[in-house]
Amino acid sequence: MKKIKLLASALLLIFGISCNQQTNSDKEPRVEKEVKKSTKNTTDALTVWHDEPKNRILSWVNTVTDSTSSDFIPVNDRIAVFDNDGTLWPEQPVPNQAQFMLDYLKKNYPNKPEWKNDSIVSAAVEGNFEPLKKAGMKGLIDLVNKTHSERTEEDFTQSVKQWIDTTKSKKYNKLYKEVLYLPMLQLLDYLRAHEFKTFIVSGGGADFMRVFTEEAYGIPPYQVIGSYGEVKYEVIDGTPKLSKVSGDIFVDDKTGKPESIHRFIGKKPVFCGGNSDGDQAMMQYTSSSNYKTMCVILHHTDSEREYAYDTKTLSGHLETALEEAKEKDWLVVDMKNDFKQIFSFQK
Amino acid sequence: MKKIKLLASALLLIFGISCNQQTNSDKEPRVEKEVKKSTKNTTDALTVWHDEPKNRILSWVNTVTDSTSSDFIPVNDRIAVFDNDGTLWPEQPVPNQAQFMLDYLKKNYPNKPEWKNDSIVSAAVEGNFEPLKKAGMKGLIDLVNKTHSERTEEDFTQSVKQWIDTTKSKKYNKLYKEVLYLPMLQLLDYLRAHEFKTFIVSGGGADFMRVFTEEAYGIPPYQVIGSYGEVKYEVIDGTPKLSKVSGDIFVDDKTGKPESIHRFIGKKPVFCGGNSDGDQAMMQYTSSSNYKTMCVILHHTDSEREYAYDTKTLSGHLETALEEAKEKDWLVVDMKNDFKQIFSFQK
Repeated sequence: MKKIKLLASALLLIFGISCNQQTNSDKEPRVEKEVKKSTKNTTDALTVWHDEPKNRILSWVNTVTDSTSSDFIPVNDRIAVFDNDGTLWPEQPVPNQAQFMLDYLKKNYPNKPEWKNDSIVSAAVEGNFEPLKKAGMKGLIDLVNKTHSERTEEDFTQSVKQWIDTTKSKKYNKLYKEVLYLPMLQLLDYLRAHEFKTFIVSGGGADFMRVFTEEAYGIPPYQVIGSYGEVKYEVIDGTPKLSKVSGDIFVDDKTGKPESIHRFIGKKPVFCGGNSDGDQAMMQYTSSSNYKTMCVILHHTDSEREYAYDTKTLSGHLETALEEAKEKDWLVVDMKNDFKQIFSFQK
Repeated sequence: MKKIKLLASALLLIFGISCNQQTNSDKEPRVEKEVKKSTKNTTDALTVWHDEPKNRILSWVNTVTDSTSSDFIPVNDRIAVFDNDGTLWPEQPVPNQAQFMLDYLKKNYPNKPEWKNDSIVSAAVEGNFEPLKKAGMKGLIDLVNKTHSERTEEDFTQSVKQWIDTTKSKKYNKLYKEVLYLPMLQLLDYLRAHEFKTFIVSGGGADFMRVFTEEAYGIPPYQVIGSYGEVKYEVIDGTPKLSKVSGDIFVDDKTGKPESIHRFIGKKPVFCGGNSDGDQAMMQYTSSSNYKTMCVILHHTDSEREYAYDTKTLSGHLETALEEAKEKDWLVVDMKNDFKQIFSFQK
């Protein structure tokens, strides 16, 4: 299948980046999971955004939801898509799912004698990712298959749930599922209050994300599109069983994003949020709508409250999309200067 | 990709079945597309269903939506899946999409000199399907690729729209999009009024169905799962273009149905409606939920108002699912005796 590609090179380098560890505020985080009707009033909307980007978003939403405007978008066509890693939650020092994979390898290594002969896995659990890097794509696919497949859907879901409910970001000393960008949670709520359907379109694994997106973002599993592998349905001793199995992986990144939007949503979006060149194709695709559209790029510029990066990282590399943003008038958000607050637990 | 299968044998025989042509009532049909709040009152619900099947459905819905019941299902988990051909609209004498393909071949034949050398297409446009049948799966895949691919998504959507807005079922002398099972439209409305999310999970092409499901059934494109082929995104002279291209086809039938439910919905359904052995796997999968579930099989028993068929047809073959229905207590609806009315235009 042409669109079944190997895992993106971004993931390959994930394991090679050292961790920045520091603790931070421990005020109670709050997960926003419901549409707040109050955000229909613009005075209550996007309160942690500074005025300039905020007003651009409010102005666009006001226009396209005004039934007397020539730019009016009917409710059925209000499709908003968001990248996840680096757009709704952090992706540094490594994407959270890479940490999940590594933790899974370490935890299960003692019980998997067959892994002992695997030089890549044996090195990775010791924190040495050189063999993985040398093995390239094939090595990485093997690793994803080892950590994600030959497991029933219930077993995989349970292991993600157990991990996400207990594992903390070292930088923030908060559960990963609480380290979410508050301005973006406000934006999700604000759009939903104006009858937009919000979707995730991410390079992350769909089966991984779906475990927490409903609680974290108010986005149900069937509005979460991500990378995915093979599954197999069979009935064993009268019991239906659906398992993840080894095989090709569809990588939902770059041109894969508009392709998966076509496959899963079947409508062209009118709003797109992202933060890297991996989101550029879906922004182009969104911009090609016949409706008046809006695209927003988060530029990670805040090394104190979060991370500052663009062209020097592989995960979240941002370069050509910034160029196209100028041409297409996409809103580039400078996270340091445009966000009053980044996380609910930071003031 | 293991799950990328060739087109089901059902389609292969589609073209070999002769058409039953007769006209019928021409009273104005009505497309139900919105959730009617009134159907929350059980007295207004399922009015064209006879009491026995109706009461079973009402009883199940009342139980699982009663927050004081031990069988209560939270709103977020109220996932209902429906087959389309033979479940929401007829599939005899041939599935409507097969007629669409044939009409497309006939219409475009004069402008496609390259098709003249294709003995299968040349014969098909003359109504001779023997060469197609002889060519087996490969021939059928070629035919689907000829009629469905190398076209942009806009072009394909437009051609389906044009066809569905103008083409009539010969038996009923009504537009295909108006020949919908009224009892099932009532059931969709009734479930949605009780906060179920309704999905289509069909062997039909997703891109074909999505053009009319919103208007016909009130089901938006992103809740329509079907068979699908390859698409390709590219930017040509600065313009993003998403095209259907030749390649493998995922057939959303039999074990493909629970597999696609996993891939697209990411939650196990609690309600399933279908009419053939092709729906059996998704009924088993639904029944394996931890919640109290319900499965409904339409048995086509009414040769006057619709068609009577089960084991003697390939499209809509119903045999092993009927056996399992007894074991699992799935509701089998005898369309002749259980439906007061089948179409809105018949009284």
